[in-house]
Amino acid sequence: MSAADLMAVLLDGRLRLDFSRPHEPGNDHLVFSKGHASPLLYSCFKAAGAIDDTELLTFRKFGSRLEGHPTPILPWVDVATGSLGQGLPVGVGLALTGKRLDQLPYRVWVLCGDSEMAEGSIWEAFEHAAYSGLDNLVAIVDVNRLGQTGETMHGWDLDYYAAKAKACGWRTIEIDGHDLEQIEAAYDQATTPSDGPTVILARTKKGKGVGAVEDLPDKHGKPLDDPDQAIEELGGVRDLTVEVAKPTVEGAAHEFSAPGGELPHYDLGTEIATRKAYGEGLRALGNRRPDVVALDGEVSNSTFSALFRDAHPERYFEMYIAEQQMIAAAVGMQARNWRPFASTFAAFLSRAYDFVRMAAVSRANMCLMGSHAGVAIGEDGPSQMALEDLASMRAVHGSIVLYPCDGNQTARLLPQMADADGISYLRTSRGATPVIYPPEESFEIGGSKVVRDGGDITLVGAGVTLHESLRAADLLAEEGVQARVIDLYSVKPVDSVTLREAAAQTGGIVTVEDHWPEGGLGDAVLDVLAATDSLVPVRKLAVHALPGSGKPAELLQQAGIDAEAIAKAARQVLQGA
Amino acid sequence: MSAADLMAVLLDGRLRLDFSRPHEPGNDHLVFSKGHASPLLYSCFKAAGAIDDTELLTFRKFGSRLEGHPTPILPWVDVATGSLGQGLPVGVGLALTGKRLDQLPYRVWVLCGDSEMAEGSIWEAFEHAAYSGLDNLVAIVDVNRLGQTGETMHGWDLDYYAAKAKACGWRTIEIDGHDLEQIEAAYDQATTPSDGPTVILARTKKGKGVGAVEDLPDKHGKPLDDPDQAIEELGGVRDLTVEVAKPTVEGAAHEFSAPGGELPHYDLGTEIATRKAYGEGLRALGNRRPDVVALDGEVSNSTFSALFRDAHPERYFEMYIAEQQMIAAAVGMQARNWRPFASTFAAFLSRAYDFVRMAAVSRANMCLMGSHAGVAIGEDGPSQMALEDLASMRAVHGSIVLYPCDGNQTARLLPQMADADGISYLRTSRGATPVIYPPEESFEIGGSKVVRDGGDITLVGAGVTLHESLRAADLLAEEGVQARVIDLYSVKPVDSVTLREAAAQTGGIVTVEDHWPEGGLGDAVLDVLAATDSLVPVRKLAVHALPGSGKPAELLQQAGIDAEAIAKAARQVLQGA
Repeated sequence: MSAADLMAVLLDGRLRLDFSRPHEPGNDHLVFSKGHASPLLYSCFKAAGAIDDTELLTFRKFGSRLEGHPTPILPWVDVATGSLGQGLPVGVGLALTGKRLDQLPYRVWVLCGDSEMAEGSIWEAFEHAAYSGLDNLVAIVDVNRLGQTGETMHGWDLDYYAAKAKACGWRTIEIDGHDLEQIEAAYDQATTPSDGPTVILARTKKGKGVGAVEDLPDKHGKPLDDPDQAIEELGGVRDLTVEVAKPTVEGAAHEFSAPGGELPHYDLGTEIATRKAYGEGLRALGNRRPDVVALDGEVSNSTFSALFRDAHPERYFEMYIAEQQMIAAAVGMQARNWRPFASTFAAFLSRAYDFVRMAAVSRANMCLMGSHAGVAIGEDGPSQMALEDLASMRAVHGSIVLYPCDGNQTARLLPQMADADGISYLRTSRGATPVIYPPEESFEIGGSKVVRDGGDITLVGAGVTLHESLRAADLLAEEGVQARVIDLYSVKPVDSVTLREAAAQTGGIVTVEDHWPEGGLGDAVLDVLAATDSLVPVRKLAVHALPGSGKPAELLQQAGIDAEAIAKAARQVLQGA
Repeated sequence: MSAADLMAVLLDGRLRLDFSRPHEPGNDHLVFSKGHASPLLYSCFKAAGAIDDTELLTFRKFGSRLEGHPTPILPWVDVATGSLGQGLPVGVGLALTGKRLDQLPYRVWVLCGDSEMAEGSIWEAFEHAAYSGLDNLVAIVDVNRLGQTGETMHGWDLDYYAAKAKACGWRTIEIDGHDLEQIEAAYDQATTPSDGPTVILARTKKGKGVGAVEDLPDKHGKPLDDPDQAIEELGGVRDLTVEVAKPTVEGAAHEFSAPGGELPHYDLGTEIATRKAYGEGLRALGNRRPDVVALDGEVSNSTFSALFRDAHPERYFEMYIAEQQMIAAAVGMQARNWRPFASTFAAFLSRAYDFVRMAAVSRANMCLMGSHAGVAIGEDGPSQMALEDLASMRAVHGSIVLYPCDGNQTARLLPQMADADGISYLRTSRGATPVIYPPEESFEIGGSKVVRDGGDITLVGAGVTLHESLRAADLLAEEGVQARVIDLYSVKPVDSVTLREAAAQTGGIVTVEDHWPEGGLGDAVLDVLAATDSLVPVRKLAVHALPGSGKPAELLQQAGIDAEAIAKAARQVLQGA
């Protein structure tokens, strides 16, 4: 209720959105960063004629589109919100898309709560929006001063928020959020030319208009004791509708040119880091698909997304060291049908885990690349080593998790990531690894490769541990043990047929991963074996002790995931130890 | 090299730290938020006489304490850094500890890079430090303008940073970071009385003093071509030492009183939400242990940490909706031997996942509580449902993951969490569940309970799914099937003995969890069965489809994790289907 006046005036002529054609490229975008204001959002949809009273009353009921917090199962909702501090960064992504990708004059309106202004991600958005000159972005902050448990840090101190926003480079407007003339004047000002984004800071009262709750604490998210009385106070039962303005400009989004071309080829026996193959592959993919864009968290010379940047500067976004804003921007871009590839060190994708989680609720289609996985990075130490990324990314709804071991495999997985629904994650390695697949080899999401056949025991690895597994197979062969080696490059979905065959045809399975023991490649194998009732001895090798610095080989050995450790585990399985 | 002058002057009389007694309570704290400046930090230790030349030259070598990024295996390092934007929020935690817990006049000095000023977590720290009046905190920002790949967003625009810091309420000092007099004056000013924190913004040059790299791009993290020439330029080989000042105040940290008292008792057959038992248990624990402190992310009336707040206000920290700052503050507090319990919705702990990951590298001892787990929360929808927390928290090095099903179990696990090394995580539920354990029952970390015996099949659940499993056992009993039900409240470490017995003594195992299928309770069971060569059919029930809103029972049914689904899976296992 605190933001109802703000939204009523917005809908009455300011917002330009054709509710009957929600995917019209020229539509404005309205993001409720305070997703718990969903009753207001759905009431706006009702007032605009997009939904009817019957549907409005299904709010929060099983099977309803009107969930407790908005999600894109409603066509007028770009992204899911409900985890605070995410809507504004996503709005930055939409506004960047409008200016640099779609190249259409739509506006992005974001309703923020004042409680969520405490989230750092909000201030990443403030910084990036001003830095990028996003004059098509308007944030409306509903400063009702009351959070869930009590007053915010700054109460109704609009000047505090204004000073911070101004320091970031925003135009600021402070108003009484229940004074309709002030609200109109604010929108008028916010839509006059500017060289950057505008924030409207509106002093409001929580529960405005209903005496039993207005400006009172401890009323957050609780039903009213006397709803009839409240309706009476608000003016009685009415059926208000509003004619929402249509977009001023018709027409399609901009399209970039893509001359086509081949994916990179690497010769068998040469060496290349999979992170470098990512950069070369992504550059090539940019030549083949005009919708592919890239973002990076200021490590593009490590992830090699710099190669895409240099080839396709108009489709590259430097997000600096702000991983949350990077993922949020990618989510905004994919909402307008671009295909983002966002990259940083795999360890630092953990900074944006809540954003990745929410991206899945947003039904986002986007691609992530995390480099420098595992102890194999060597000297930089554990802060830079992703050892939990397979677990965390597997536990994202509908995700794809890939972990290639050579250059050709890496490059050939990229077009499939770009085609895939949902969130796909590619884990790459720091060091160079030998090219073991010819350039013409094909790789499916959900597939695997038997890179060496053998009937005694099966070794399952991926990335750096695939190469260690091959070396272990050599060691075992010297002892007369024929090891089958499976490259499980698709950790999710996982190739159940090949694993089940291995369980049936060999005397046991050793899995090996440069990752903590929990939730990674080994657990993926155990899961599929259980699901297919494949009862076979399995040894899981993974990193157990906290590593330090050292050479990659020293750390692989210390972790017990190098060839010697794999061969030893294989012997133990065969001996029933 | 850009920050060497800043640190040299700091060590020469400003920093008060007895290197020979690193755990002296009155010592100042020096945090390198830019952890990649580790060579400078280690050089400071060398200059202070804490380490010798021989050890200094082990930098980044296998087995050395001098890792690529600092960690607390060095006694003068409070916390691990290397994931940017974390040192300052941890510094806020240390400064809060100094003022409100230790009640000692030590200062906290944090060296920040300018690249990391793009992280939102830095601005959470700026906001909280000023809000809490932390006049014992000094941030020194090394504005060398060059990041890893290029220039930062703001280059040498010190005024930009100063305006933002001022708007947050900080005292700001802008200097030339290579002018020793200006540096001295800045420290003098920073240590004069104030009502809040101070930031020194220092304009510096990357690679200062060595012509081959000074203020040049593309030199980040790369060895010098001609180190001898560089040493010559820097003044030649010397053996500089510095007498670092000792703390001015001797003496112990403040101790709170803890009168003792009993943990809460709940009567069998009554109902209570485990999140509420957490609040009541934590309040009681605060009476028993004076070192226990609590933090919450502005949902204390949902997590019931408000009960601790009301009983022990001096040991409660409201962190507002800033989960990263909340975890960082907890890490800072535990570095001074307090035992923090930090709580929010389990879904929103994902916001701070990188901080939890780094806390493990910091060897932090702290307790986390995530409420509102799984689809069982009902109407609020998927943005509020933690469905990945078991996976992500299991994949934290050395972590403990607990998921109680009743009030007595919850309360009795809390003292054990407070005693445990490492990071322990407690998952709680929104809705009330029946009390099934008597108050005198004891629960070990790493244990489980066989809550119903039976020899035909085993059902393994925890939290809400334990109650569904009991109901499934009733359904199966009606059909003459005797199901054993295991309460796997300790998801990590996991009770291998009881699970192995179940595998040996019953015809199969059904695991059931209110969580995605990846990395949770089911995978924990498969892992232990594989490790013990227990070959038994296992069916894993978990949430597969993205849920919406609805009543808890509707959502449990839809997800296929309610009693009926469990009974059905058990029948299938028994029929070999």
